Amino acid sequence: MTTSPTTPEMHWSRWGDPAQAGPLPESARTLVDAFLGTSDTPAVAPEEVRLSDPLDDALVAELAGIVGVDHVLVDRETRLHRTRGKSTPDLLRLRQGDGLDSPDAVVRPCTHDEVAAVISWCVRRQVALVPFGGGTSVVGGLVASREGYAGVLSLDLVRLDKLLEVDHESMTAVLEPGLRGPQAESLLAAEGLTLGHFPQSFEYASIGGFAVTRSSGQSSAGYGRFDALVVGLTVATPQGTLELGSSPANAAGPDLRELVMGSEGAFGVVTAVRARVRRTPAVKVYDAWQFVSFAEGATAMRTLAQAGLLPTVIRLSDENEAAINLARPAEIGAESAGGCLLIAGYEGTQESVDARRAACTGLLESLGGTDLGEGGGQAWAEGRFHGPYLRDSLLDVGVLVETLETVTFWSNLDHVYQAVKQSLVESLGEATMVLCHISHVYETGASLYFTVATRQSDDPLAQWLAAKAAVSDVIVRSGASITHHHAIGRDHKPWLAQEIGPVGVMILRSVKERLDPTNILNPGVLIP
Amino acid sequence: MTTSPTTPEMHWSRWGDPAQAGPLPESARTLVDAFLGTSDTPAVAPEEVRLSDPLDDALVAELAGIVGVDHVLVDRETRLHRTRGKSTPDLLRLRQGDGLDSPDAVVRPCTHDEVAAVISWCVRRQVALVPFGGGTSVVGGLVASREGYAGVLSLDLVRLDKLLEVDHESMTAVLEPGLRGPQAESLLAAEGLTLGHFPQSFEYASIGGFAVTRSSGQSSAGYGRFDALVVGLTVATPQGTLELGSSPANAAGPDLRELVMGSEGAFGVVTAVRARVRRTPAVKVYDAWQFVSFAEGATAMRTLAQAGLLPTVIRLSDENEAAINLARPAEIGAESAGGCLLIAGYEGTQESVDARRAACTGLLESLGGTDLGEGGGQAWAEGRFHGPYLRDSLLDVGVLVETLETVTFWSNLDHVYQAVKQSLVESLGEATMVLCHISHVYETGASLYFTVATRQSDDPLAQWLAAKAAVSDVIVRSGASITHHHAIGRDHKPWLAQEIGPVGVMILRSVKERLDPTNILNPGVLIP
Repeated sequence: MTTSPTTPEMHWSRWGDPAQAGPLPESARTLVDAFLGTSDTPAVAPEEVRLSDPLDDALVAELAGIVGVDHVLVDRETRLHRTRGKSTPDLLRLRQGDGLDSPDAVVRPCTHDEVAAVISWCVRRQVALVPFGGGTSVVGGLVASREGYAGVLSLDLVRLDKLLEVDHESMTAVLEPGLRGPQAESLLAAEGLTLGHFPQSFEYASIGGFAVTRSSGQSSAGYGRFDALVVGLTVATPQGTLELGSSPANAAGPDLRELVMGSEGAFGVVTAVRARVRRTPAVKVYDAWQFVSFAEGATAMRTLAQAGLLPTVIRLSDENEAAINLARPAEIGAESAGGCLLIAGYEGTQESVDARRAACTGLLESLGGTDLGEGGGQAWAEGRFHGPYLRDSLLDVGVLVETLETVTFWSNLDHVYQAVKQSLVESLGEATMVLCHISHVYETGASLYFTVATRQSDDPLAQWLAAKAAVSDVIVRSGASITHHHAIGRDHKPWLAQEIGPVGVMILRSVKERLDPTNILNPGVLIP
Repeated sequence: MTTSPTTPEMHWSRWGDPAQAGPLPESARTLVDAFLGTSDTPAVAPEEVRLSDPLDDALVAELAGIVGVDHVLVDRETRLHRTRGKSTPDLLRLRQGDGLDSPDAVVRPCTHDEVAAVISWCVRRQVALVPFGGGTSVVGGLVASREGYAGVLSLDLVRLDKLLEVDHESMTAVLEPGLRGPQAESLLAAEGLTLGHFPQSFEYASIGGFAVTRSSGQSSAGYGRFDALVVGLTVATPQGTLELGSSPANAAGPDLRELVMGSEGAFGVVTAVRARVRRTPAVKVYDAWQFVSFAEGATAMRTLAQAGLLPTVIRLSDENEAAINLARPAEIGAESAGGCLLIAGYEGTQESVDARRAACTGLLESLGGTDLGEGGGQAWAEGRFHGPYLRDSLLDVGVLVETLETVTFWSNLDHVYQAVKQSLVESLGEATMVLCHISHVYETGASLYFTVATRQSDDPLAQWLAAKAAVSDVIVRSGASITHHHAIGRDHKPWLAQEIGPVGVMILRSVKERLDPTNILNPGVLIP
């Protein structure tokens, strides 16, 4: 199997670069041992994983006629690597040897027209099609329904990896969907530009995935959510091509870009994204601050947001998260400064960084913050993409660890924070660590991102699914959203239905049925 | 007929407060005489206007059972005042005595439940329903199809005029759709708050109208477009109530708020809007600047936008608009400073205004601007809502005057500017004044707002419709949007179809057909 040199395959049953897989660092193991206890719970060997049957040879031959014989793959390894996403349930299933949601074939088109042709073929042959960008979904976005289909195809967008256009005057760039975060940034850097979109999944996630899941990066305060960066989209659908984005913003009816974003391949396959770009920042500095309580830190964030004085990066770890230094993975287990940790990062020209840093620093001091010293957030910046590796090392030692997130208005934030913590402890037992941070703030509200760790039961999958269902009920009953930046997939569907109500569901269904009447596009995902 | 004391009826055939109707100021008449010539072209008397037949008595009685006898009105005056909107074609038709698009009855519900009950009744009786907020549409958004309907109802939202909730912590407010701009601002001011939304139609336009037409105010650089202010919507549809807005932003599927915004009543009737609010600014100051060319002024605006240093208000009049002082109506005909006029306004706390003004002033100077002196933009601020009155005075003296607007990316702006001017002169003749300003800017592009004046032909309606069709073709062919902030209505439908393409049209139709299968909601509007 060929892979693009700049997009290494992820480990089959873990996050990220296989070379970085390893045991839990000693300091972290000591900590976890003390709190939860550990025991070895290794994964099965990859050759033991049960996969679906490969696609019928005759169908493979037809697909080869569209994209070329080298780009229709049915070997075990390729299919295994495109089996589900990277949620803890996804990993637990694979670790136990269950790969039955694997695609029956992987097809790699190279152009919009090839994508459109594969879609037409899937309609004709009643084959389910799952668009695959980075494979980083944590909500079951890569698992298609099988019943009633002649097969399930993974549409790997890896070869749609071009920077198609740069408009330096309008500060936009047209990117193909298969570009992973680092590839896109590297191509843009050569033009002196950046998207500024750095979610934790950055190293593997793709441009198309960012758009169709409404991704939000760690620098969202400065650069904006990905959906706010998108100004145009090209989408291949069973009914033809949809071209959106005549202008930065307009009043020409409903904004259909906002219907494609968040659609997770259920309405069509995004084949190009025109996004806002910014100049590569000359300066990046990340300060660390201490706040005595989560509430006080949250109030400081709200004050900054409502004063229009946000840094580029702003995040606040609660007491639990700060205590184990989760925001600075290299220091887990080391002594923490106590209280809550706020990171305020500034990126831009020296002049702009100086002005914003001075204004924010003054405000943070007046709001009760203690400056932890020049550049104290550097450790956070260095470990910013490392968190997911830690999860795999914990799964290896009998710890169940997963994350979940939500977003609500400021006046509801503390209520949701307390209710989620209580629900998780009720589901998983007193010996459960619940850590939380706020990493995306708006004038009107903020996200809450929880990390949960507890001892694995005999059936960790069932253990987590029960806890996730209970906490999702709590989130939606509290008036918060089922997800701030991870989309719906299969896992969040029941709660999406509650969140948007029966008329909202009716709207999604009407669009789905019109654009994809034979329901071949990522069936089972998104639409309740 | 009762009217709310704070929402005076507009003049039946002119913009705005009847008390402010009057002849063209002498200085302006001299100017217009010299350029175009004038002649008296008065409107017919209101009693000469032909209206549709009033709604059948039996149907009126049924409606009275829903909203009360006082709130179903079929008298001529009430219906005349809700006949079409305020585009120049709308005014020309009324001035000529054509009021045949009048509603057959006006119904004034008081609550969401009454709105829902009226909708259900319209479905049962196959009566077309036109939601009416401020009556300020300039795109034919208030004209329903009649064929196949038992009548046409104007759903006047004037009694849905409450501020339902204020959340000072989250800085949001829930407003009913019938609140006009000044009413909403007055209720919010009592709480120390403002929406900061001041389109030229502010004095009459409504909260519901702002949302469903994607209005953009003169302070959009500082406060944002109205669609960017909306965080939640309640919508009554024939299929039930749609409640949207669990959070500031999220990844819970497509953003259905963005489907309701811009829908102009075709999918449902908005009965409540949760919007972002800001603190009432302590300081407001408007500076005037001169730039030698439109291109240089536009570059300055782009530089500010891309540096993240936008004032609260920023607008640039081209040489023609600056020469006649259109941006300062009280000074029309007086000597202008020459070149292009840029207004930069700053609102907020003294500290914030000082900081932003200093930064912008430095940048504007470095970009070739000449400061026209302290507070030189005050004349603009004082006349900011006055423009439409001038149009009526010009229509009285044989001048055809209308506006149109578009939006595009910066790299396409000059091309569209030149192409629109050329198209208008080609359609309307060399003796046509075409004035332009940029009043809404983004990092990636800007709006262009044109004012056109020429001598009326024998058939000014046909004269304008031909010019409008030609220039709309040019706009869409140039890759710009058919409207930046005035919606689609009936007038822009053919160009919406080109702008979003057949798949986009299919999406709109699918939602329309599912939510409103009997097509009673503003039929003929929006959906191509």
